[in-house]
Amino acid sequence: MADRWRAVAAEAGGTAFLLAAVVGSGIMGERLSGGSVGLALLANSLATGAALVALVAAFGPVSGAHFNPAVTLAEAWRGALAPGRAAAYVAAQVAGAVGGVAAAHAMFGGAIVQASSTARPGARLWFAEFVATVGLLAIVRGVSAARSALAPLAVGAYIASAYWFTASTSFANPAVTFARCWTDTFAGIRPADAPAFVAAQLAGAAFSAVLWPRLFPEPAPVRPA
Amino acid sequence: MADRWRAVAAEAGGTAFLLAAVVGSGIMGERLSGGSVGLALLANSLATGAALVALVAAFGPVSGAHFNPAVTLAEAWRGALAPGRAAAYVAAQVAGAVGGVAAAHAMFGGAIVQASSTARPGARLWFAEFVATVGLLAIVRGVSAARSALAPLAVGAYIASAYWFTASTSFANPAVTFARCWTDTFAGIRPADAPAFVAAQLAGAAFSAVLWPRLFPEPAPVRPA
Amino acid sequence: MADRWRAVAAEAGGTAFLLAAVVGSGIMGERLSGGSVGLALLANSLATGAALVALVAAFGPVSGAHFNPAVTLAEAWRGALAPGRAAAYVAAQVAGAVGGVAAAHAMFGGAIVQASSTARPGARLWFAEFVATVGLLAIVRGVSAARSALAPLAVGAYIASAYWFTASTSFANPAVTFARCWTDTFAGIRPADAPAFVAAQLAGAAFSAVLWPRLFPEPAPVRPA
Amino acid sequence: MADRWRAVAAEAGGTAFLLAAVVGSGIMGERLSGGSVGLALLANSLATGAALVALVAAFGPVSGAHFNPAVTLAEAWRGALAPGRAAAYVAAQVAGAVGGVAAAHAMFGGAIVQASSTARPGARLWFAEFVATVGLLAIVRGVSAARSALAPLAVGAYIASAYWFTASTSFANPAVTFARCWTDTFAGIRPADAPAFVAAQLAGAAFSAVLWPRLFPEPAPVRPA
Repeated sequence: MADRWRAVAAEAGGTAFLLAAVVGSGIMGERLSGGSVGLALLANSLATGAALVALVAAFGPVSGAHFNPAVTLAEAWRGALAPGRAAAYVAAQVAGAVGGVAAAHAMFGGAIVQASSTARPGARLWFAEFVATVGLLAIVRGVSAARSALAPLAVGAYIASAYWFTASTSFANPAVTFARCWTDTFAGIRPADAPAFVAAQLAGAAFSAVLWPRLFPEPAPVRPA
Repeated sequence: MADRWRAVAAEAGGTAFLLAAVVGSGIMGERLSGGSVGLALLANSLATGAALVALVAAFGPVSGAHFNPAVTLAEAWRGALAPGRAAAYVAAQVAGAVGGVAAAHAMFGGAIVQASSTARPGARLWFAEFVATVGLLAIVRGVSAARSALAPLAVGAYIASAYWFTASTSFANPAVTFARCWTDTFAGIRPADAPAFVAAQLAGAAFSAVLWPRLFPEPAPVRPA
Repeated sequence: MADRWRAVAAEAGGTAFLLAAVVGSGIMGERLSGGSVGLALLANSLATGAALVALVAAFGPVSGAHFNPAVTLAEAWRGALAPGRAAAYVAAQVAGAVGGVAAAHAMFGGAIVQASSTARPGARLWFAEFVATVGLLAIVRGVSAARSALAPLAVGAYIASAYWFTASTSFANPAVTFARCWTDTFAGIRPADAPAFVAAQLAGAAFSAVLWPRLFPEPAPVRPA
Repeated sequence: MADRWRAVAAEAGGTAFLLAAVVGSGIMGERLSGGSVGLALLANSLATGAALVALVAAFGPVSGAHFNPAVTLAEAWRGALAPGRAAAYVAAQVAGAVGGVAAAHAMFGGAIVQASSTARPGARLWFAEFVATVGLLAIVRGVSAARSALAPLAVGAYIASAYWFTASTSFANPAVTFARCWTDTFAGIRPADAPAFVAAQLAGAAFSAVLWPRLFPEPAPVRPA
């Protein structure tokens, strides 16, 4: 496979597993928690964060492991990704995300595609999505600029934490938000509430695209003397 | 010890500790959870994932830390392991796995070998095992190809996560599946249900042996000019 | 941005996210735990530790990721930070911390600034803060002197652990203590109880500034022959 | 400080923090768990494992971060530690462990030294201690021989896991066992039950001192041509 298509396939595959983890562990967590939403969210957040650690470690060297149009757009904005490649990434992320939700439903039962009925309304949640996205893009830019060996752990740990510290449980990802419209389970979001989430995430990505490259400049390339 | 036998012994020993962790933490989790299956699975999944982090870090440099015939077969298929070595690995994994279950019973009480009565039937669970195995082999191949320093963490985190996001709680391992037939505790599986699990895992391994080496090619070896 | 101002901005931004994580996950944990303080503290401690792993990995290469006047003062004491830089760090940490609390309130509702009513009195808790700070500064100095690749993980893991093993739930940070006066939620501390916490932390910092550089000496710098 | 005394002090200090974490988080876990032993052990195991990650990362470069006479004796047996150094390590570990228990009591209240009344009897638990120690020493020898960057994580993850998968909750450490005799709280062990635990641990150490250096040989030292 050419490198370009390997990268696009990695974005689709990785995002599919990410959504299977988000939706599947939400279903399992709710089923087994005996009504304790706290226990369900603990399982859901740990499973999502741990999946990200594994997926970013495995797929990162192939595609960068964005799995997230907000990351891809911020990278394109700073010139690290050509527009054509960015568009292919976003398409792959959305397709993969929907595929991952379908896979979770095929494993756990219920219709393959379900419109969510979970209301997540209000300006507080939109602000939470802005905060969640700005924080995620700080972590991504910071560990990338520093070439941190712990980058996969940092990303997974941030998302597991942000499930708890943002009022919206940190979607922070337009592809994830779109796909979670189509599951009427623990992790779902009513389609009517999704556009504002995505708008807040894109605002966070724009803010981050301006701010974080200044705080975390790329090191100058090493070149032969 | 010759390297060959060190590697085979590492597969047996590591798989034994893995099964002791799976079965032992399942027993302890169920005993202490006061009827909350969610709390029991949280303990079981974290203990299994953490054991894998430690075992892969320690035994990986000796044998590759497969602990899993699905991994060994996929590696043999792509030519990274000779057939004789692969057969010895699988035999060691199965023997170690059964030994680990016996050790858990010796610690916690009950007969050393017990036929499980836990039904795990149905096509949804078979599909879940296919997904769980394909995902595991993606992580293994991805972090191996990238020579990731976080490989042990990625494997342990993936399994802890997959306990929650696959409907079958992610056995994803024929040796583990066989050994879990012989414990009538939290982690058991009725022997009648095991062959379909193993078939799904082998299908996942075959799928992965074709797909993942294309997505995650080995880097060209560095050789002196 | 000049390096100096990048570092100061990183201290403000990182401390803001740290406090948003501490306070936000405390609110979410309490809301979802159905009255189980243990479950709420589990969520709060894991979310705080995981946030630190991510934040130290991302911001550490820019500023050292102190996020804590006790760390900054101990570093200044051993001569690793000029007094002017240390003062700018502390001011940034306090401002960021208060901003992070305000952001948590904006996400979760309630007044932006709230005086806490949570009593945390008594000499046992002051001793706990001394212990918590001495331990934190041992970890920071030890992993810094050793140039450990796991430094972000060590700091996050220590704090998650110290939430449980110190009687005061390990504030261990004067900026955090000050900011937590202004939230009447799970993580708050009554303003009247804060000065003794800060005094104990500063005592721990002074003790640590004398002790730990002797136990963990900096390696001699490598210089060209 | 001379390197020798730095190392001995590191063993005392690190073991003190380890015991403070074991005993302190046991007390906090039991107080906040509302009678759920499973939730208390989850907090206790995660806090202990996380403390070990931090302590091994910080103190390891100074002393090797044994914190455990079983580790020290196995290292002395294979010739990696002189007998005099080993004796000083063991004395420091025991003194530090008792000091850590006393510190936990000073933080949480109750007498500074308390004889435990928690019965932990029976051959199953002795076998569990043998298994726990053999596993711990496999991890320690394996990651040491491989010079693994994840060594602190592997040790902490193993112990957190072994709390759940061994029937004795994995003391696996004679200094820890002795010190836990003197706390009548969640983590205590009746002094009458301790000698058999220690004997099982020493049997595990002897078994490991013979077995693991063969499975995990030290790499040949690199020397200038």
